[in-house]
Amino acid sequence: MITIKKFGGTSVGSIERIEKVADRIVADIKKGQKPVVVASAMSGETNRLVRLAHEIDPLNRGPGYDMLLASGEQVSIALLSIALEKRGVTATPLLAHQLGIQTDSIYSKARIQSVDGEKLKALVNQNTVPIVAGFQGVTDDFKITTLGRGGSDTTAVALAASIGADACEIYTDVPAVFTADPRLVKRAREIPVLCYEEMMEMASLGSKVLHFRCVELAVKFNVKLHVRSTFEEREGTWIVPEGESMENPVVSSVTHDASTVVLKIFPTPSGTGFKSQLFSTLAERGIVVDIITQSHNEEGQRLAFSVSEEDALLAKKIVDEMVGSSARVDIMKDMAKISTIGVGMRNHPGVAARFFQVLDAIRVPIHLVTTSEIKISAVIDKKNLEKAAEGLHREFHLDDDV
Amino acid sequence: MITIKKFGGTSVGSIERIEKVADRIVADIKKGQKPVVVASAMSGETNRLVRLAHEIDPLNRGPGYDMLLASGEQVSIALLSIALEKRGVTATPLLAHQLGIQTDSIYSKARIQSVDGEKLKALVNQNTVPIVAGFQGVTDDFKITTLGRGGSDTTAVALAASIGADACEIYTDVPAVFTADPRLVKRAREIPVLCYEEMMEMASLGSKVLHFRCVELAVKFNVKLHVRSTFEEREGTWIVPEGESMENPVVSSVTHDASTVVLKIFPTPSGTGFKSQLFSTLAERGIVVDIITQSHNEEGQRLAFSVSEEDALLAKKIVDEMVGSSARVDIMKDMAKISTIGVGMRNHPGVAARFFQVLDAIRVPIHLVTTSEIKISAVIDKKNLEKAAEGLHREFHLDDDV
Repeated sequence: MITIKKFGGTSVGSIERIEKVADRIVADIKKGQKPVVVASAMSGETNRLVRLAHEIDPLNRGPGYDMLLASGEQVSIALLSIALEKRGVTATPLLAHQLGIQTDSIYSKARIQSVDGEKLKALVNQNTVPIVAGFQGVTDDFKITTLGRGGSDTTAVALAASIGADACEIYTDVPAVFTADPRLVKRAREIPVLCYEEMMEMASLGSKVLHFRCVELAVKFNVKLHVRSTFEEREGTWIVPEGESMENPVVSSVTHDASTVVLKIFPTPSGTGFKSQLFSTLAERGIVVDIITQSHNEEGQRLAFSVSEEDALLAKKIVDEMVGSSARVDIMKDMAKISTIGVGMRNHPGVAARFFQVLDAIRVPIHLVTTSEIKISAVIDKKNLEKAAEGLHREFHLDDDV
Repeated sequence: MITIKKFGGTSVGSIERIEKVADRIVADIKKGQKPVVVASAMSGETNRLVRLAHEIDPLNRGPGYDMLLASGEQVSIALLSIALEKRGVTATPLLAHQLGIQTDSIYSKARIQSVDGEKLKALVNQNTVPIVAGFQGVTDDFKITTLGRGGSDTTAVALAASIGADACEIYTDVPAVFTADPRLVKRAREIPVLCYEEMMEMASLGSKVLHFRCVELAVKFNVKLHVRSTFEEREGTWIVPEGESMENPVVSSVTHDASTVVLKIFPTPSGTGFKSQLFSTLAERGIVVDIITQSHNEEGQRLAFSVSEEDALLAKKIVDEMVGSSARVDIMKDMAKISTIGVGMRNHPGVAARFFQVLDAIRVPIHLVTTSEIKISAVIDKKNLEKAAEGLHREFHLDDDV
């Protein structure tokens, strides 16, 4: 049975850890598994490369930038292959172009379009362990692309889909997905089973455990995900279709994103086309706009939206160019987004009311807010993040022992 | 006019230097040049990667190892592209597979077989600056290979050959090729013109300025080389066919190699096949044997040969296995090879006599010696290297002001 195993940056963060990962792979082979391995860059390496690029030009995004970042995974898969060869296991390190991981041409946030699953199967049948570089792809004119932060998870699911595997193991430095980030909320607990929709919301709302696109692909190709520890044997969190999840608490998790920035435009230029032009320009430049709100007063319309910290400067530049001197553009830093997520919210009205009551009771002002049928998100000051997370975690009974 | 410009590791050794290289390229474009750039890895990076691999397995050589090392050039060309884009110049970073730099499959010492010059010309005609990763190639089944230390010089000449360029600029951290290593011989001077044969001898006898294979390719495709400083405007050393060199001093340079080891076998096993079997076994294991001498006395035949320090242990092991207890195998460490090189030696008899007189006068014993029509090399004790180099440099008028 072919098993896709993805190892994150901390799992391959040092030579010692790479050797441990190699030991684990060899042990799984002895149990009869036929592994296909996906690896991220060694922890810290992508940040180091980003810093080098930023020293030259913090705004550059394109083929050079993606080629730079892709080198991190090249190093880790090469080292992991050497570690497996040392253990008498034949390994084949594979970059995106070598495996035909085709993507579109949206640099730094490319989307996988196809993977050569036949090549992967052929390698496994030749008794070699494919060690695939995560996070990277190749356009149809052979340029290197990258998939955005956490993109190696997506690579792993795309490989699983390409060979029809029904599960994909995501090895990481935490033993499972938690009800909240344990560094922020001391009483956070492990979640044994989550459904896809919840995990997608968590990923898009700031949970670092899985990449949004990875869960989206898992849904599309019906690949179950198993998030588990690289350094412990026991099982972690399974992410499965909704019907297969046993329990549906009202709220499954409190998720946060501490790298949120809010841009405010006042007065918003009149004319019907401005907002559509603004958001399509931002999208073309690869900037994901998160929450958007607008309000009116007698002096005009106020538009506010949130973006991630790393996109903030570029977003500000684009907005400045579009509005010129006709409006004031403010950037609000040190913001955070806090969210409660749960498919159980569909059947339990009143969650929004409790959400606002909690923040109100502990005097946390809300700058932006958005809801869907399974989540509520608010942008608040970063300094209030911890008490807001603890308050919400308690309110929705996530502190309770199960 | 297309100009190939190769920048070495120290030239791209920091972000500050990469910016300076970008400035220089932009200045050359303004003068009407159409550059094609080749870059090495940032200085220290290849060593860092080698250390990582060695921590796992010091003996591994293969696709993983070469993929690992090739990542260094990927980083530098990506950063250089970003620096050019920042200056408003369109740049295209190119890895070996993207440019079709085909090699054989001898990992870590691959030889370039072909380069897609048409692709390179097409890019230049689209007004983009190709920034090509040096040191790397790709096999016909898309595996990454590397060309050995200094291989980026070879990449540069191969690109020049592929587009029919008649010259290739090698930018480095020294302003020119010198008559001797200035750290060893204080009166060493810059050499304005050298012929290919002299440069090939220098490269093979220990000069670090150019890779032997690079000069060999330059001869084959009649590409003139211009070794010059990255950080100064003035010209450095031209390396040209013999007829084009204006002056032919008897000796052009005193070159040394301080990493020589001598192996001695006594008595050499009798039988006609021993020596051919010995040297073919060493060659199969990738060991380059340099000088070989043999001598007889009443007790038998003595065989001695020199190898590089890094190959010494493996060579000793191979020899020990072949001779068993039938002979004594001695290893002489702390040796150095000193050579005088010059095409003028062809027309000036008596150079060998002067060479021996100099070493004799300053009491430097010679362990091995070899000559060709344009060079004399001797293996001496490393502790005598400096005085031998200075003596020879003076004797052959390389100290003189020109």
